[in-house]
Amino acid sequence: MSGEAITSFNTVWVVMAAAMVLFMEGGFSLLEAGLVRTKNAVNVTMKIFVDLTVGALAFYLIGFGIMFGSDWGGFVSFDLWGAAESLKLSIDLPLPAYVLFQLGFAVAVISIISGAVAERMSFKAYILVALFVAAVLYPISGHWIWNADGWLARLGMKDFAGSAAVHAMGGFSALALAYAVGPRRGRFNSDGSVNVFAPSNIPLASAGAFILWFGWFGFNAGSTLNAFDANLPSIALHTSLAASAGGASSMLYTMFRYGKADPSMTMNGALAGLVAITAGCAFVSSYSAIVIGLLAGLFVIWGTLAVDKMKIDDPVGAVAVHGVNGLFGTVAVGLFDTQAGLLTTGQTRLLLVQLLGVAVVSAWGFAVSFVLAKGLKATVGLRVGAAEEEEGLDMAMHGIPAYNDLERFSDQPEARLLETYGVTVGRERAQFDA
Amino acid sequence: MSGEAITSFNTVWVVMAAAMVLFMEGGFSLLEAGLVRTKNAVNVTMKIFVDLTVGALAFYLIGFGIMFGSDWGGFVSFDLWGAAESLKLSIDLPLPAYVLFQLGFAVAVISIISGAVAERMSFKAYILVALFVAAVLYPISGHWIWNADGWLARLGMKDFAGSAAVHAMGGFSALALAYAVGPRRGRFNSDGSVNVFAPSNIPLASAGAFILWFGWFGFNAGSTLNAFDANLPSIALHTSLAASAGGASSMLYTMFRYGKADPSMTMNGALAGLVAITAGCAFVSSYSAIVIGLLAGLFVIWGTLAVDKMKIDDPVGAVAVHGVNGLFGTVAVGLFDTQAGLLTTGQTRLLLVQLLGVAVVSAWGFAVSFVLAKGLKATVGLRVGAAEEEEGLDMAMHGIPAYNDLERFSDQPEARLLETYGVTVGRERAQFDA
Amino acid sequence: MSGEAITSFNTVWVVMAAAMVLFMEGGFSLLEAGLVRTKNAVNVTMKIFVDLTVGALAFYLIGFGIMFGSDWGGFVSFDLWGAAESLKLSIDLPLPAYVLFQLGFAVAVISIISGAVAERMSFKAYILVALFVAAVLYPISGHWIWNADGWLARLGMKDFAGSAAVHAMGGFSALALAYAVGPRRGRFNSDGSVNVFAPSNIPLASAGAFILWFGWFGFNAGSTLNAFDANLPSIALHTSLAASAGGASSMLYTMFRYGKADPSMTMNGALAGLVAITAGCAFVSSYSAIVIGLLAGLFVIWGTLAVDKMKIDDPVGAVAVHGVNGLFGTVAVGLFDTQAGLLTTGQTRLLLVQLLGVAVVSAWGFAVSFVLAKGLKATVGLRVGAAEEEEGLDMAMHGIPAYNDLERFSDQPEARLLETYGVTVGRERAQFDA
Repeated sequence: MSGEAITSFNTVWVVMAAAMVLFMEGGFSLLEAGLVRTKNAVNVTMKIFVDLTVGALAFYLIGFGIMFGSDWGGFVSFDLWGAAESLKLSIDLPLPAYVLFQLGFAVAVISIISGAVAERMSFKAYILVALFVAAVLYPISGHWIWNADGWLARLGMKDFAGSAAVHAMGGFSALALAYAVGPRRGRFNSDGSVNVFAPSNIPLASAGAFILWFGWFGFNAGSTLNAFDANLPSIALHTSLAASAGGASSMLYTMFRYGKADPSMTMNGALAGLVAITAGCAFVSSYSAIVIGLLAGLFVIWGTLAVDKMKIDDPVGAVAVHGVNGLFGTVAVGLFDTQAGLLTTGQTRLLLVQLLGVAVVSAWGFAVSFVLAKGLKATVGLRVGAAEEEEGLDMAMHGIPAYNDLERFSDQPEARLLETYGVTVGRERAQFDA
Repeated sequence: MSGEAITSFNTVWVVMAAAMVLFMEGGFSLLEAGLVRTKNAVNVTMKIFVDLTVGALAFYLIGFGIMFGSDWGGFVSFDLWGAAESLKLSIDLPLPAYVLFQLGFAVAVISIISGAVAERMSFKAYILVALFVAAVLYPISGHWIWNADGWLARLGMKDFAGSAAVHAMGGFSALALAYAVGPRRGRFNSDGSVNVFAPSNIPLASAGAFILWFGWFGFNAGSTLNAFDANLPSIALHTSLAASAGGASSMLYTMFRYGKADPSMTMNGALAGLVAITAGCAFVSSYSAIVIGLLAGLFVIWGTLAVDKMKIDDPVGAVAVHGVNGLFGTVAVGLFDTQAGLLTTGQTRLLLVQLLGVAVVSAWGFAVSFVLAKGLKATVGLRVGAAEEEEGLDMAMHGIPAYNDLERFSDQPEARLLETYGVTVGRERAQFDA
Repeated sequence: MSGEAITSFNTVWVVMAAAMVLFMEGGFSLLEAGLVRTKNAVNVTMKIFVDLTVGALAFYLIGFGIMFGSDWGGFVSFDLWGAAESLKLSIDLPLPAYVLFQLGFAVAVISIISGAVAERMSFKAYILVALFVAAVLYPISGHWIWNADGWLARLGMKDFAGSAAVHAMGGFSALALAYAVGPRRGRFNSDGSVNVFAPSNIPLASAGAFILWFGWFGFNAGSTLNAFDANLPSIALHTSLAASAGGASSMLYTMFRYGKADPSMTMNGALAGLVAITAGCAFVSSYSAIVIGLLAGLFVIWGTLAVDKMKIDDPVGAVAVHGVNGLFGTVAVGLFDTQAGLLTTGQTRLLLVQLLGVAVVSAWGFAVSFVLAKGLKATVGLRVGAAEEEEGLDMAMHGIPAYNDLERFSDQPEARLLETYGVTVGRERAQFDA
């Protein structure tokens, strides 16, 4: 087979996978819009568009170079501009295909954060967060793991598709921002009790979960970056098995423990399985993938309750899904890796490297995000006003409700919309639009 | 081209197709959630998650071996465990890719059933149904048709992607279960008249239909299991033409016959065309595919009315779509097959084999499912209580409504949710969450 | 690499791309259903099914031959029937794969129109419009650009994936039909002021936008029709960068200019970027793709306001997205083409050819559609009655509302549905379905 043919085959595979990864943004958006309260569903949707627009451009122009450019001491690259145009890859793949695929990953990191700060973070502050995460925060820690010369890569850390680089980093960044922005009004009571704000649209959230499951085949199997990788089919199979196992354990646990098979926990359980297998999909057996998924489905529940106990408000469970299970999934490689796992081979070195790596990356995500949050609070402000929060960010920031039926919302939303476009409502209005 | 390259190319093709087939679960879920009444939309969604979690694991661990393991008398295999890890394939495809693809088919069979028993079957009973269908029911009849040594395969039955093995079997299993569980309360009147329960969310249902249409390209063209199959593009084209024809005939028929172009019939008409072409997509001409689709679009309407007349309640029309048209599609191969069809070549043998095969498979699906239903009724119970049915399964079994706006549902759903997690609502609550 | 292998590889690539392009219909449907008022969401959904059923069959049977058959004077082909079965292609791709891919494009053109005439065009008239556009209107102008012997092709016009052939033509056809059918009642006031009718379901619309973005990778990169095209990965990257840039500029513009980051403008901005890069994705640099996207995001806003000023009512902004930016994208090739663009090379010839080509194609779309509209108005009628429009086309034409909860709609919708199926409601009804 000619070199040109090999390159073309790898290209088509990675471009298809990249399209699926970018489609995951639709999954994040629908999942979050369905899990938050109706009055903030538009705002979370708009935040995903921030990720896909401002975030994607920031990563393309700056972040990509920092992450994959020529290494400086294992920690960073100073190829700030144009690396996405000129970098030489050591793998048999054209640069644009590689850039497009990595773009999807950077955007996903921001989207993990968007859910945890939903329903109260200011939109302007979020845009700055997205810029910083895509241009600097993620690329630096990503450099440590995925740049061939990164210090964690050289230590032998195994994070195939990013349980640590994407999910743990994003999840702990989300934890810091959710903590710094504070809980939604009314979420926690002075007597210490917790108020559950019910998800607003379960079928919509489920649509998001199904899209994420679909896209994850591109996320994990696409990370081979090589259509000839003999592991490609088992990576895809392990991905789906872990998702099935995660959904199964969280569904059955809530059913037997609480008497109700809980929809949002079941969805988050499947996603937790996907997050947890992301590091190890290429390194563990099918049965290990199932075990990892089953555990992830429990960790997401206990993680959600733990975050509540800490009085940190995470409307969609992003910390439990991505943070907790990104951490678990990275450690799980050290336990189940067929070559060097503790449980499979008795070796301990890989486990220690995985623990070190995920701890450092999670701490990095948490600490820098916390400082960022303080900086934003001191400048542009981090949170919307109480009145805007009461009304909902949809009307306050975007001038339109998620679901507009006039019976329910009177003319207010339209009135706002009209201001938005600076047009006026004529007399004839009422008679027609009843 | 090297053998390794050929294998890699087949692998990428089948993995992509498998991802699309598994994505069809999102299609089933949104379609069903949109076609049932609002108060049961969460429950049908959760049943699809049962298929994707418990069902997928059951097929992986047990069903796959029964279906594709070493044959015993043309009827079954006793490779109960681990076949998905160790089976030797005679085709040029790695086992994990084949397993993942077959996993999607097994899950689809259960999802066909989920719609027919929607709005009244107990969730626990459904979990047991899913386990049994994925582990035993589908794999056994599937063995007859798709195991190289299966007795129907040896007879020369042609069921390319499963009009019989997946759709007719699933559809008649659904018929038996819908009959055994009984109609929804208020569906049929003592004077013999029928009450139509209007679909709750047409745009949501349409999203499901579009996803199913997309996934079906993987379902049918992926069934080549071979990226070099010269029929691959015409299989994909025939699939889409039959869907277009099915949607066209049902849309135009309801428009001219009833004065309204009916949305759910139009969607089901397109799906009926997809079901009907599934057996023959590789064996018939493009024009035959269009004819098959046009007929399928009518059969789905007449089938729906016939099921109503039998006083069997199928909330989403699964029997008419999958059962009736799975049967028709299998027979259609005997009529339109370019090599041996009755209408195309005057031969009768293939038609008789197709009739025998689909009759046996449909009877198997119906009979065993009916016995299963009786067994469940006598043990864990098959149906929810009258009060739960009145309230809707969403609140009764999952503690949350599909669409939660406080204006409409008061605080009741949240109250339930809180019980679910065992947290209490504090005093401050009301003032914030208005 | 053997010729057979090359053909197979191209086939799999184009079939996957075609599936993604056809999936875009789901994107159009959800986007439009979310942007129109609730009472017309079913009707726009059904119009997309018209495109996918009647429209697809019309193109398969007639349009394909006119567009790609043996040329007559550079303007048309008279291969009216069966060309989709027998045409010889000069490229290394089986005919069925090519037909399926082109089918998706023809259907997309009709769907562009569906949005602009939403909420008031008669369903029967729309079916005839779909037939005409798929069978005649699009194939003829498409012939000029994409038939190797077309007169614009011979002039050297560059329209890689159809900014002109698909989007400008469709957008200006939409403008003519929207103008001819007249504005929705109450849209414009006698004092000249404009009433904004708020979109009914933003999360649903966003789902459509995400699906369109995903499908566009198939639309643009698939247009290589060749898996070995060295431009394939940069085409995909440019497509996504332009979408990101378009969404960014429209989001930030509405945020700073009007004080609200507007959701429908942000979505339409991303789509505008996709439309604008469609002609040039294979011919411009990455940075040019970003600039083209940034401009498209502004043109879509100014275009929307301009259409309002002309008192033409385009409920979803189809003219601004597809017409204005299809025109801009075609011209942009003349400005940014790396080989012959005015800004990149100082040459003017290509720019003039692009201007001529897009002007002619847009005029063709507008003029013929206007005549068609007049013809329909004089015969079957173009518009629903005032009462039907007030009630909404969903109940009037399809007998069912988009979102049916009995609390909100009383029993009326069901009553209608029952008429539809000619069954009667029994006494027991009320007590159960409360």
